[in-house]
Amino acid sequence: MLVLGIDPGSNATGWALVSQVSGRFQVHEAAVIRTRSTEPMGDRLMLIHSGLTQVIGRLQPDCVAIEAIFQHRSAESALRLGHARGVALLAAVQHDLQVSEYNPMTVKQTVGGHGRAGKAEMIRLVQRLVGGSRPLASDAADAAAIAITHLTQARFQALARSVAR
Amino acid sequence: MLVLGIDPGSNATGWALVSQVSGRFQVHEAAVIRTRSTEPMGDRLMLIHSGLTQVIGRLQPDCVAIEAIFQHRSAESALRLGHARGVALLAAVQHDLQVSEYNPMTVKQTVGGHGRAGKAEMIRLVQRLVGGSRPLASDAADAAAIAITHLTQARFQALARSVAR
Repeated sequence: MLVLGIDPGSNATGWALVSQVSGRFQVHEAAVIRTRSTEPMGDRLMLIHSGLTQVIGRLQPDCVAIEAIFQHRSAESALRLGHARGVALLAAVQHDLQVSEYNPMTVKQTVGGHGRAGKAEMIRLVQRLVGGSRPLASDAADAAAIAITHLTQARFQALARSVAR
Repeated sequence: MLVLGIDPGSNATGWALVSQVSGRFQVHEAAVIRTRSTEPMGDRLMLIHSGLTQVIGRLQPDCVAIEAIFQHRSAESALRLGHARGVALLAAVQHDLQVSEYNPMTVKQTVGGHGRAGKAEMIRLVQRLVGGSRPLASDAADAAAIAITHLTQARFQALARSVAR
Protein backbone atom coordinates (compact mmCIF):
# COMPACT_ATOMS: atom_id res chain seq x y z
CA MET A 1 0.00 0.00 0.00
CA LEU A 2 1.37 3.39 -1.08
CA VAL A 3 0.27 6.11 1.34
CA LEU A 4 0.62 9.80 0.56
CA GLY A 5 1.05 11.67 3.82
CA ILE A 6 0.29 15.38 3.64
CA ASP A 7 1.17 18.07 6.18
CA PRO A 8 -0.62 21.15 4.83
CA GLY A 9 0.32 24.74 5.54
CA SER A 10 -0.07 28.03 3.68
CA ASN A 11 3.72 28.62 3.74
CA ALA A 12 4.92 25.04 3.44
CA THR A 13 2.98 21.88 2.55
CA GLY A 14 5.00 18.73 3.14
CA TRP A 15 4.21 15.45 1.43
CA ALA A 16 5.73 11.98 1.53
CA LEU A 17 4.92 8.78 -0.33
CA VAL A 18 5.50 5.90 2.08
CA SER A 19 5.02 2.13 2.01
CA GLN A 20 5.90 -0.68 4.37
CA VAL A 21 7.86 -3.66 3.03
CA SER A 22 8.74 -6.58 5.31
CA GLY A 23 8.09 -4.44 8.35
CA ARG A 24 10.31 -1.57 7.22
CA PHE A 25 8.96 1.81 6.21
CA GLN A 26 10.21 3.19 2.93
CA VAL A 27 9.93 6.78 1.74
CA HIS A 28 9.71 6.61 -2.06
CA GLU A 29 9.65 10.35 -2.56
CA ALA A 30 9.04 13.37 -0.35
CA ALA A 31 9.22 17.13 -0.75
CA VAL A 32 7.83 20.45 0.45
CA ILE A 33 5.69 22.82 -1.62
CA ARG A 34 6.70 26.31 -0.51
CA THR A 35 4.77 29.51 -1.19
CA ARG A 36 5.65 33.15 -0.61
CA SER A 37 3.71 35.01 2.06
CA THR A 38 3.92 38.13 -0.14
CA GLU A 39 1.85 36.45 -2.89
CA PRO A 40 -1.98 36.66 -2.86
CA MET A 41 -3.56 33.74 -0.99
CA GLY A 42 -5.38 32.55 -4.15
CA ASP A 43 -2.10 32.14 -6.04
CA ARG A 44 -0.51 30.33 -3.10
CA LEU A 45 -3.48 27.94 -2.89
CA MET A 46 -3.20 27.23 -6.62
CA LEU A 47 0.49 26.32 -6.14
CA ILE A 48 -0.41 23.91 -3.32
CA HIS A 49 -3.35 22.38 -5.19
CA SER A 50 -1.55 22.00 -8.54
CA GLY A 51 1.58 20.70 -6.79
CA LEU A 52 -0.37 17.97 -4.96
CA THR A 53 -2.42 17.20 -8.08
CA GLN A 54 0.79 16.59 -10.02
CA VAL A 55 2.23 14.43 -7.22
CA ILE A 56 -0.93 12.30 -7.04
CA GLY A 57 -1.12 11.94 -10.84
CA ARG A 58 2.53 10.95 -11.14
CA LEU A 59 2.96 8.71 -8.09
CA GLN A 60 -0.53 7.14 -7.96
CA PRO A 61 -0.86 6.62 -4.18
CA ASP A 62 -3.52 4.20 -2.91
CA CYS A 63 -4.77 6.61 -0.26
CA VAL A 64 -4.04 9.84 1.57
CA ALA A 65 -3.34 10.47 5.26
CA ILE A 66 -3.55 13.96 6.72
CA GLU A 67 -3.40 15.46 10.18
CA ALA A 68 -6.72 16.11 11.91
CA ILE A 69 -6.67 19.46 13.63
CA PHE A 70 -8.22 20.08 17.00
CA GLN A 71 -6.35 22.98 18.52
CA HIS A 72 -4.70 26.16 17.36
CA ARG A 73 -2.71 28.99 18.67
CA SER A 74 -5.19 31.48 17.21
CA ALA A 75 -8.27 31.77 15.00
CA GLU A 76 -6.13 33.60 12.46
CA SER A 77 -3.64 30.75 12.11
CA ALA A 78 -6.55 28.26 11.99
CA LEU A 79 -8.09 30.21 9.11
CA ARG A 80 -4.82 30.24 7.14
CA LEU A 81 -4.25 26.55 7.79
CA GLY A 82 -7.87 25.83 6.79
CA HIS A 83 -7.28 27.40 3.37
CA ALA A 84 -4.27 25.16 2.67
CA ARG A 85 -5.86 22.06 4.17
CA GLY A 86 -9.03 22.65 2.12
CA VAL A 87 -7.24 22.59 -1.24
CA ALA A 88 -5.14 19.58 -0.13
CA LEU A 89 -8.31 17.60 0.72
CA LEU A 90 -9.82 18.74 -2.58
CA ALA A 91 -6.84 17.43 -4.58
CA ALA A 92 -7.20 14.02 -2.87
CA VAL A 93 -10.97 13.73 -3.33
CA GLN A 94 -10.75 14.87 -6.97
CA HIS A 95 -8.60 11.76 -7.53
CA ASP A 96 -11.09 9.49 -5.73
CA LEU A 97 -8.60 8.83 -2.96
CA GLN A 98 -9.76 7.79 0.49
CA VAL A 99 -8.58 10.31 3.09
CA SER A 100 -7.78 9.24 6.66
CA GLU A 101 -7.24 11.80 9.41
CA TYR A 102 -5.07 11.33 12.50
CA ASN A 103 -4.75 13.72 15.38
CA PRO A 104 -1.24 14.93 16.30
CA MET A 105 -1.22 12.94 19.55
CA THR A 106 -1.86 9.66 17.68
CA VAL A 107 0.92 10.50 15.19
CA LYS A 108 3.34 11.25 18.02
CA GLN A 109 2.41 8.08 19.92
CA THR A 110 2.76 5.93 16.80
CA VAL A 111 6.09 7.34 15.68
CA GLY A 112 7.55 8.38 19.02
CA GLY A 113 6.05 5.85 21.40
CA HIS A 114 4.74 8.70 23.57
CA GLY A 115 2.68 11.84 22.98
CA ARG A 116 5.19 14.36 24.28
CA ALA A 117 7.82 14.17 21.52
CA GLY A 118 8.97 17.61 20.37
CA LYS A 119 9.36 18.66 16.75
CA ALA A 120 13.11 17.93 16.50
CA GLU A 121 12.69 14.56 18.22
CA MET A 122 9.86 13.61 15.83
CA ILE A 123 12.03 14.35 12.79
CA ARG A 124 14.85 12.25 14.24
CA LEU A 125 12.45 9.37 15.01
CA VAL A 126 10.92 9.46 11.52
CA GLN A 127 14.38 9.58 9.99
CA ARG A 128 15.35 6.49 11.97
CA LEU A 129 12.17 4.63 10.98
CA VAL A 130 12.68 5.23 7.26
CA GLY A 131 16.45 4.79 7.25
CA GLY A 132 19.10 7.45 7.24
CA SER A 133 19.89 7.46 3.52
CA ARG A 134 17.32 10.08 2.65
CA PRO A 135 17.43 13.18 4.85
CA LEU A 136 13.95 14.70 4.98
CA ALA A 137 13.02 18.37 5.30
CA SER A 138 11.07 19.13 8.47
CA ASP A 139 7.62 19.41 6.81
CA ALA A 140 8.27 16.32 4.66
CA ALA A 141 9.21 14.39 7.83
CA ASP A 142 5.88 15.46 9.40
CA ALA A 143 4.07 14.19 6.30
CA ALA A 144 6.00 10.90 6.49
CA ALA A 145 5.02 10.56 10.17
CA ILE A 146 1.33 10.84 9.22
CA ALA A 147 1.74 8.24 6.45
CA ILE A 148 3.55 5.89 8.87
CA THR A 149 0.69 6.34 11.35
CA HIS A 150 -1.80 5.31 8.67
CA LEU A 151 0.24 2.25 7.64
CA THR A 152 0.54 1.19 11.29
CA GLN A 153 -3.16 1.71 12.01
CA ALA A 154 -4.22 -0.07 8.81
CA ARG A 155 -2.01 -3.04 9.73
CA PHE A 156 -3.38 -3.09 13.26
CA GLN A 157 -6.97 -2.94 12.03
CA ALA A 158 -6.38 -5.74 9.49
CA LEU A 159 -4.93 -7.83 12.35
CA ALA A 160 -7.89 -7.01 14.61
CA ARG A 161 -10.30 -8.09 11.84
CA SER A 162 -8.46 -11.40 11.34
CA VAL A 163 -8.53 -12.11 15.09
CA ALA A 164 -12.24 -11.29 15.28
CA ARG A 165 -13.08 -13.82 12.57
CA MET B 1 -18.73 44.82 -15.22
CA LEU B 2 -20.08 41.48 -13.98
CA VAL B 3 -19.01 40.78 -10.42
CA LEU B 4 -19.37 37.37 -8.81
CA GLY B 5 -19.83 37.87 -5.07
CA ILE B 6 -19.06 34.81 -2.97
CA ASP B 7 -19.95 34.22 0.68
CA PRO B 8 -18.16 30.96 1.49
CA GLY B 9 -19.13 28.53 4.23
CA SER B 10 -18.72 24.80 4.77
CA ASN B 11 -22.50 24.35 5.16
CA ALA B 12 -23.71 27.01 2.73
CA THR B 13 -21.77 28.97 0.12
CA GLY B 14 -23.78 31.84 -1.34
CA TRP B 15 -22.97 33.40 -4.69
CA ALA B 16 -24.50 36.21 -6.73
CA LEU B 17 -23.66 37.63 -10.15
CA VAL B 18 -24.25 41.38 -9.98
CA SER B 19 -23.75 44.33 -12.33
CA GLN B 20 -24.64 48.01 -12.16
CA VAL B 21 -26.57 49.55 -15.05
CA SER B 22 -27.44 53.26 -15.02
CA GLY B 23 -26.82 53.42 -11.29
CA ARG B 24 -29.03 50.46 -10.47
CA PHE B 25 -27.69 47.15 -9.19
CA GLN B 26 -28.93 44.06 -10.97
CA VAL B 27 -28.66 40.48 -9.73
CA HIS B 28 -28.43 38.31 -12.85
CA GLU B 29 -28.37 35.04 -10.98
CA ALA B 30 -27.80 33.97 -7.39
CA ALA B 31 -27.97 30.74 -5.42
CA VAL B 32 -26.60 28.83 -2.45
CA ILE B 33 -24.45 25.69 -2.65
CA ARG B 34 -25.47 23.60 0.35
CA THR B 35 -23.56 20.65 1.77
CA ARG B 36 -24.42 18.12 4.45
CA SER B 37 -22.50 18.26 7.70
CA THR B 38 -22.71 14.45 7.87
CA GLU B 39 -20.63 14.09 4.67
CA PRO B 40 -16.80 13.96 4.81
CA MET B 41 -15.21 17.42 4.52
CA GLY B 42 -13.39 16.45 1.30
CA ASP B 43 -16.67 15.62 -0.45
CA ARG B 44 -18.25 18.87 0.77
CA LEU B 45 -15.28 20.87 -0.51
CA MET B 46 -15.56 19.16 -3.90
CA LEU B 47 -19.25 20.17 -4.08
CA ILE B 48 -18.36 23.80 -3.31
CA HIS B 49 -15.41 23.88 -5.72
CA SER B 50 -17.20 22.14 -8.60
CA GLY B 51 -20.34 24.25 -8.03
CA LEU B 52 -18.39 27.52 -8.22
CA THR B 53 -16.32 26.23 -11.16
CA GLN B 54 -19.53 25.53 -13.08
CA VAL B 55 -20.97 28.95 -12.18
CA ILE B 56 -17.80 30.76 -13.31
CA GLY B 57 -17.59 28.73 -16.55
CA ARG B 58 -21.24 29.32 -17.39
CA LEU B 59 -21.68 32.96 -16.34
CA GLN B 60 -18.17 34.29 -17.17
CA PRO B 61 -17.87 37.01 -14.51
CA ASP B 62 -15.21 39.71 -14.95
CA CYS B 63 -13.96 39.41 -11.38
CA VAL B 64 -14.71 37.95 -7.96
CA ALA B 65 -15.43 39.70 -4.66
CA ILE B 66 -15.23 37.81 -1.38
CA GLU B 67 -15.39 38.72 2.29
CA ALA B 68 -12.06 39.27 4.06
CA ILE B 69 -12.13 37.65 7.48
CA PHE B 70 -10.57 39.20 10.54
CA GLN B 71 -12.45 37.83 13.50
CA HIS B 72 -14.10 34.58 14.50
CA ARG B 73 -16.06 33.12 17.26
CA SER B 74 -13.58 30.26 17.61
CA ALA B 75 -10.50 28.69 16.04
CA GLU B 76 -12.67 25.68 15.14
CA SER B 77 -15.14 27.74 13.12
CA ALA B 78 -12.24 29.65 11.51
CA LEU B 79 -10.69 26.36 10.41
CA ARG B 80 -13.96 25.13 8.86
CA LEU B 81 -14.54 28.46 7.15
CA GLY B 82 -10.93 28.44 5.92
CA HIS B 83 -11.50 25.10 4.15
CA ALA B 84 -14.51 26.45 2.23
CA ARG B 85 -12.92 29.83 1.53
CA GLY B 86 -9.75 28.12 0.27
CA VAL B 87 -11.53 26.12 -2.44
CA ALA B 88 -13.63 29.19 -3.39
CA LEU B 89 -10.46 31.27 -3.91
CA LEU B 90 -8.94 28.36 -5.83
CA ALA B 91 -11.92 28.19 -8.23
CA ALA B 92 -11.55 31.94 -8.94
CA VAL B 93 -7.78 31.90 -9.47
CA GLN B 94 -7.99 28.76 -11.66
CA HIS B 95 -10.13 30.90 -14.01
CA ASP B 96 -7.63 33.80 -13.96
CA LEU B 97 -10.14 36.01 -12.16
CA GLN B 98 -8.97 38.93 -10.05
CA VAL B 99 -10.17 38.51 -6.46
CA SER B 100 -10.98 41.53 -4.27
CA GLU B 101 -11.54 41.16 -0.54
CA TYR B 102 -13.70 43.41 1.63
CA ASN B 103 -14.03 43.28 5.36
CA PRO B 104 -17.54 42.86 6.81
CA MET B 105 -17.58 46.42 8.18
CA THR B 106 -16.94 47.88 4.71
CA VAL B 107 -19.70 45.71 3.24
CA LYS B 108 -22.15 46.82 5.94
CA GLN B 109 -21.22 50.48 5.52
CA THR B 110 -21.55 50.30 1.73
CA VAL B 111 -24.88 48.50 1.69
CA GLY B 112 -26.35 49.68 4.97
CA GLY B 113 -24.84 53.13 5.32
CA HIS B 114 -23.54 52.21 8.79
CA GLY B 115 -21.49 49.38 10.27
CA ARG B 116 -24.02 48.15 12.80
CA ALA B 117 -26.64 46.62 10.47
CA GLY B 118 -27.77 43.18 11.63
CA LYS B 119 -28.18 40.15 9.39
CA ALA B 120 -31.92 40.60 8.73
CA GLU B 121 -31.50 44.31 8.07
CA MET B 122 -28.66 43.61 5.60
CA ILE B 123 -30.83 41.17 3.63
CA ARG B 124 -33.65 43.73 3.50
CA LEU B 125 -31.24 46.49 2.36
CA VAL B 126 -29.69 44.31 -0.35
CA GLN B 127 -33.14 43.28 -1.50
CA ARG B 128 -34.12 46.94 -1.79
CA LEU B 129 -30.93 47.81 -3.73
CA VAL B 130 -31.43 45.07 -6.31
CA GLY B 131 -35.20 45.44 -6.61
CA GLY B 132 -37.85 43.29 -5.04
CA SER B 133 -38.56 41.03 -8.00
CA ARG B 134 -36.05 38.40 -7.03
CA PRO B 135 -36.19 37.29 -3.40
CA LEU B 136 -32.72 36.17 -2.36
CA ALA B 137 -31.80 33.44 0.12
CA SER B 138 -29.86 34.77 3.11
CA ASP B 139 -26.42 33.54 1.97
CA ALA B 140 -27.05 34.68 -1.61
CA ALA B 141 -27.98 38.14 -0.29
CA ASP B 142 -24.66 38.24 1.63
CA ALA B 143 -22.85 37.37 -1.60
CA ALA B 144 -24.77 40.10 -3.46
CA ALA B 145 -23.80 42.61 -0.73
CA ILE B 146 -20.11 41.82 -1.29
CA ALA B 147 -20.51 42.20 -5.09
CA ILE B 148 -22.33 45.54 -4.59
CA THR B 149 -19.47 46.68 -2.35
CA HIS B 150 -16.96 45.87 -5.08
CA LEU B 151 -19.00 47.66 -7.76
CA THR B 152 -19.29 50.73 -5.51
CA GLN B 153 -15.60 50.75 -4.60
CA ALA B 154 -14.52 50.22 -8.23
CA ARG B 155 -16.72 53.15 -9.32
CA PHE B 156 -15.35 55.34 -6.55
CA GLN B 157 -11.75 54.46 -7.40
CA ALA B 158 -12.33 55.16 -11.12
CA LEU B 159 -13.77 58.55 -10.13
CA ALA B 160 -10.81 59.26 -7.83
CA ARG B 161 -8.41 58.41 -10.65
CA SER B 162 -10.18 60.75 -13.09
CA VAL B 163 -10.12 63.60 -10.53
CA ALA B 164 -6.40 63.01 -9.84
CA ARG B 165 -5.51 63.40 -13.52
